[in-house]
Amino acid sequence: MPSQLSMNLATLRNGSSFAQMVDDCLRHGITAISPWRDQVAAVGLAEAANIVRSNGLRVTGLCRGGMFPAETAEGRQQAIDDNLRAIEEAATLGADCLVLVVGGLPGSSKDIGGARQMVADGIAAMLPAARATGVPLAIEPLHPMYAADRACVNTLDQALDIAAQLGEGVGVAIDVYHVWWDPNLAAAIARAGRDKRILAHHICDWLVPTTDMLLDRGMMGDGVIDLKAIRAMIEAAGYHGPQEVEIFSRDTWWKRPGDEVVATCVERLAVTF
Amino acid sequence: MPSQLSMNLATLRNGSSFAQMVDDCLRHGITAISPWRDQVAAVGLAEAANIVRSNGLRVTGLCRGGMFPAETAEGRQQAIDDNLRAIEEAATLGADCLVLVVGGLPGSSKDIGGARQMVADGIAAMLPAARATGVPLAIEPLHPMYAADRACVNTLDQALDIAAQLGEGVGVAIDVYHVWWDPNLAAAIARAGRDKRILAHHICDWLVPTTDMLLDRGMMGDGVIDLKAIRAMIEAAGYHGPQEVEIFSRDTWWKRPGDEVVATCVERLAVTF
Repeated sequence: MPSQLSMNLATLRNGSSFAQMVDDCLRHGITAISPWRDQVAAVGLAEAANIVRSNGLRVTGLCRGGMFPAETAEGRQQAIDDNLRAIEEAATLGADCLVLVVGGLPGSSKDIGGARQMVADGIAAMLPAARATGVPLAIEPLHPMYAADRACVNTLDQALDIAAQLGEGVGVAIDVYHVWWDPNLAAAIARAGRDKRILAHHICDWLVPTTDMLLDRGMMGDGVIDLKAIRAMIEAAGYHGPQEVEIFSRDTWWKRPGDEVVATCVERLAVTF
Repeated sequence: MPSQLSMNLATLRNGSSFAQMVDDCLRHGITAISPWRDQVAAVGLAEAANIVRSNGLRVTGLCRGGMFPAETAEGRQQAIDDNLRAIEEAATLGADCLVLVVGGLPGSSKDIGGARQMVADGIAAMLPAARATGVPLAIEPLHPMYAADRACVNTLDQALDIAAQLGEGVGVAIDVYHVWWDPNLAAAIARAGRDKRILAHHICDWLVPTTDMLLDRGMMGDGVIDLKAIRAMIEAAGYHGPQEVEIFSRDTWWKRPGDEVVATCVERLAVTF
């Protein structure tokens, strides 16, 4: 079962180094990871890539590009430039995809339609480089509660519409935390499969109550998401990559040793089957 | 402009009595209110109805019925029974509609599809009484962040699907706080208009950051919702009732005198035009 699990390294934000996080994963049979750019930068890109290669790790994604909307054309170009660097980093790490958290409303804007257009324009601008480098871009629809400040792409269908508009080299990352509530989820996942757009499958759980909108995600099995049903939908849609555990949990899991967190993730993967 | 505003009395939860809240409204030219059942119960239904009638108030809605899902058939029947009482109360107050917050996942269930079926079944069970009494039922889709614990109907389209299935006597309450992020909002509002389902239009604002998932709604103009654009969509869809201000704000507006809150609502209505 561990071979079907990837560890998003955001789950292990307890102060461990990149090498320590990898060791915690390997000790429990996890050979797939998904690091964040700041975690890669902290150890250095070359050393991170060296750790990945020397341990034969699969990198299921690099988190994250995106954050396209900005008030000025200059700001939007800066975002695109940063995304071009992210593509290079993803390529160096041999990542399966670059995950895009697309960004919310720029400045004091109330124009969510305009922000959404900036997202499509931004992805279009980086797409030639992504195609040339062979790194697919995974648009991650985020829960609507992040529409203002993190991502104005808020449903899987919306992400698929953008992907369809842009063509080859763009897909989606399906994170259960963001999409579990969607009344159209089953149809949207089936569509994502037909369109061959599924690039990643992230798991965690939705806690009741949720005490922080960003940093109170739950361990699989501790919340209300039907992880088994969603996994079945994603597999039926033709995606058979690892389930990637991504848990932002400031007050619980980020306070525990990596060894315990990874062991718990491995154990809890069972609730998804 | 005040004549186009209704005051949802949840906005005035500062300890004032029903009569005081009505006085605060009347002092600022507001002659439409939407009370909550606990606020009506506190003064007594007969006295509340007397205050409404003697002041010539319009009651744009009674909040709230709903909360249909339950783990047992007995629990679901209790919910229906309570909703039948709510219909009677709404009729006694002469309310334009009974607002339904439909409820989330019952107990430790992860079956959101099942909960949604319980909602449709519950509304169907109370609908004959609602029709006989002449009180339309307004399904209020709630923001997806409440899917687990408050309402598993989370988009306007989903509410319209249920209404279409159930027929006459069921409509929707469109609260900007819950739907502003929806990429399909414009089309859904147009559909609601074609189907003649719009029964209420609630306003407030989405604050950035939002510090509490339930009790940190903003005053119109203090957040990112394009209230003007949504009002225009709703009016273009044929609804011309008052905009009803519903602000849950434990740390800001609930701490201020009703007179100040109502005055601010009246002033801020301008940002919607």
